[in-house]
Amino acid sequence: MIQDQHAAESRFERGKRALAEIDGEAGERVVAALGDIAPDFARYLIEFPFGDIFSRPGLDYRAREIATIAALTALGNAKPQLKVHIEAGLNVGLTREEIVEVIMQMAVYAGFPAALNGLFAAKEVFAARDTAQ
Amino acid sequence: MIQDQHAAESRFERGKRALAEIDGEAGERVVAALGDIAPDFARYLIEFPFGDIFSRPGLDYRAREIATIAALTALGNAKPQLKVHIEAGLNVGLTREEIVEVIMQMAVYAGFPAALNGLFAAKEVFAARDTAQ
Amino acid sequence: MIQDQHAAESRFERGKRALAEIDGEAGERVVAALGDIAPDFARYLIEFPFGDIFSRPGLDYRAREIATIAALTALGNAKPQLKVHIEAGLNVGLTREEIVEVIMQMAVYAGFPAALNGLFAAKEVFAARDTAQ
Amino acid sequence: MIQDQHAAESRFERGKRALAEIDGEAGERVVAALGDIAPDFARYLIEFPFGDIFSRPGLDYRAREIATIAALTALGNAKPQLKVHIEAGLNVGLTREEIVEVIMQMAVYAGFPAALNGLFAAKEVFAARDTAQ
Amino acid sequence: MIQDQHAAESRFERGKRALAEIDGEAGERVVAALGDIAPDFARYLIEFPFGDIFSRPGLDYRAREIATIAALTALGNAKPQLKVHIEAGLNVGLTREEIVEVIMQMAVYAGFPAALNGLFAAKEVFAARDTAQ
Amino acid sequence: MIQDQHAAESRFERGKRALAEIDGEAGERVVAALGDIAPDFARYLIEFPFGDIFSRPGLDYRAREIATIAALTALGNAKPQLKVHIEAGLNVGLTREEIVEVIMQMAVYAGFPAALNGLFAAKEVFAARDTAQ
Repeated sequence: MIQDQHAAESRFERGKRALAEIDGEAGERVVAALGDIAPDFARYLIEFPFGDIFSRPGLDYRAREIATIAALTALGNAKPQLKVHIEAGLNVGLTREEIVEVIMQMAVYAGFPAALNGLFAAKEVFAARDTAQ
Repeated sequence: MIQDQHAAESRFERGKRALAEIDGEAGERVVAALGDIAPDFARYLIEFPFGDIFSRPGLDYRAREIATIAALTALGNAKPQLKVHIEAGLNVGLTREEIVEVIMQMAVYAGFPAALNGLFAAKEVFAARDTAQ
Repeated sequence: MIQDQHAAESRFERGKRALAEIDGEAGERVVAALGDIAPDFARYLIEFPFGDIFSRPGLDYRAREIATIAALTALGNAKPQLKVHIEAGLNVGLTREEIVEVIMQMAVYAGFPAALNGLFAAKEVFAARDTAQ
Repeated sequence: MIQDQHAAESRFERGKRALAEIDGEAGERVVAALGDIAPDFARYLIEFPFGDIFSRPGLDYRAREIATIAALTALGNAKPQLKVHIEAGLNVGLTREEIVEVIMQMAVYAGFPAALNGLFAAKEVFAARDTAQ
Repeated sequence: MIQDQHAAESRFERGKRALAEIDGEAGERVVAALGDIAPDFARYLIEFPFGDIFSRPGLDYRAREIATIAALTALGNAKPQLKVHIEAGLNVGLTREEIVEVIMQMAVYAGFPAALNGLFAAKEVFAARDTAQ
Repeated sequence: MIQDQHAAESRFERGKRALAEIDGEAGERVVAALGDIAPDFARYLIEFPFGDIFSRPGLDYRAREIATIAALTALGNAKPQLKVHIEAGLNVGLTREEIVEVIMQMAVYAGFPAALNGLFAAKEVFAARDTAQ
């Protein structure tokens, strides 16, 4: 029982560190927002995507954020998460220009509306950053 | 008229070179298959995705194929194109392990079935390569 | 002619009763909102989903709402309807905890963003209910 | 009871005539294939899409098939139904060239893979027609 | 070089004329909004969808807008673009009733929520037109 | 280190038991097929969907399979997984009639093609079961 909890925490801790490095405050806000409706889901979110997947050694954070921004732009139905990951892309070293390139490329694979909505999401993130400074 | 055609060809030629570098024979087969049903579409396919987008300087082919493999895995409804781009990823220098990482990551953004079907598509591409050698 | 109308009404009446039991006021609001743009569509909405499908004996309303909440969470592109059916789930006897379980499970089949957006939709519905009391 | 059945049949009969005019034998095969698993669904399929929607006066069959071919190409996950409606488009007077135009246009709204898979579905339908003659 | 630019401009000019005829002010607003984040994408948007596809002779603007409204309603994840194309449909001669018919039909191919959200988008466009007069 | 592995195994073991109860041999085949391409993903598949989600007490297996069959039918792009979960539904006590009801209902939320393809997937599963006996 104690062992189970200890090991779960170590996976959880690894995920928490990755989440902080990648998503920063935006990640914390999502976790906090889940607190009163699905606290276990906050834990899964930290453990599986961040503790398991993003912590794997085979691909760096930059490449992983390119993949995530591409997928969320193409799916086109998860704007809040796309914005979090555009932020995340900047946090892990992608330039604004690189992020814009990835989103534009999605016109080829998911159509112009998906790319347009992705670009406008990026515009909102970039503007909020400029205002915050 | 001649000028129009000449310039279109130069954009076309840039796309053809990119298509050959990225998709190799698989790209040629797609273009050939369009010949009797929609030859203009074969031209658009060369001009816009390859002549315009993939030829842009802001992102290298490796990053672009990460984005494409991620998007096609997440969308989950274009297996032939996913297989072409898994090939393309290998052609431009991604390792099998990196491609598998990108596909596995899609379990987070598009669910386990999308990731599973992407992994099985990769398995088919890798096996065909091993047999061909 | 009269017979046709009578029978159509009986199918319509069955649908109206089911709609009232399941969706309550939210269902009425949707029907009313269609009045000036597509009144026939309001009729189809009552007749096919509610008069035909939800009125079938093979599955109770609880099971049907589990299926609907799962599908709308997974599709991720119909938030207003998802909220109506989270309400509906509560109306037909699902607990908040059961609804949260169904939505969390969708992380497996449609990814974490779909599940997160479903949970936040549920949070809005639950909060509106708490305020209304 | 008898009245109910009579009126249902008249809606059913209208749908059957529309289905025969639009989908021809392909429609009959779908209805037959449902016989042993979900006969009621065969009835719904005749009544709602064909008896209600396609029988409405506001839009002719040609326009309706343009809409359906566009949507099924864009969604990209229902190849059997796309092929049935490419057939249907030909049945109601669309030319092969017009159908190819609609499908190519979907590259703009749903990406090149969706359009490519739509074109290859059309190629299969056209080839089967040529062989049958 | 000059030839290249000249021909590119002629393709660009053809697209600009088509965009103005079809999308009117709404198209200009999208192009303007891209100016500070992805000006090249504004150019691609004019060149490929409008300069290449919509300018093709095989299908008139009315038929093309039926296809686009159908696809965007069915995909259900691009409300801003759907609204632009409902406007566009009116601009090229579709009646409100015809647009409503196309959207209602999508209940068959993409479900009632997609059709409902399409109808409410149309309602917003029609109301804005009535107010503007 | 040892503790970590021990606890991971206990989560893994819980998932393995759930997977065996729910998916039976079909689940084992998926895990085996991942062995040579992404063995870690086989572990994640056991740990998160089955060890974490399906093992939660708030919803029984019957309700969970209704949710999964609904979602996979609606998404329409994961036929192998839909078939595995139609099997799973039967394994955990759903009748064929109940599964058919869930799939038919998806015509309302994801369109008739999604429901038709779901029904034909069910038909294949039921036929294979009948042959195996």
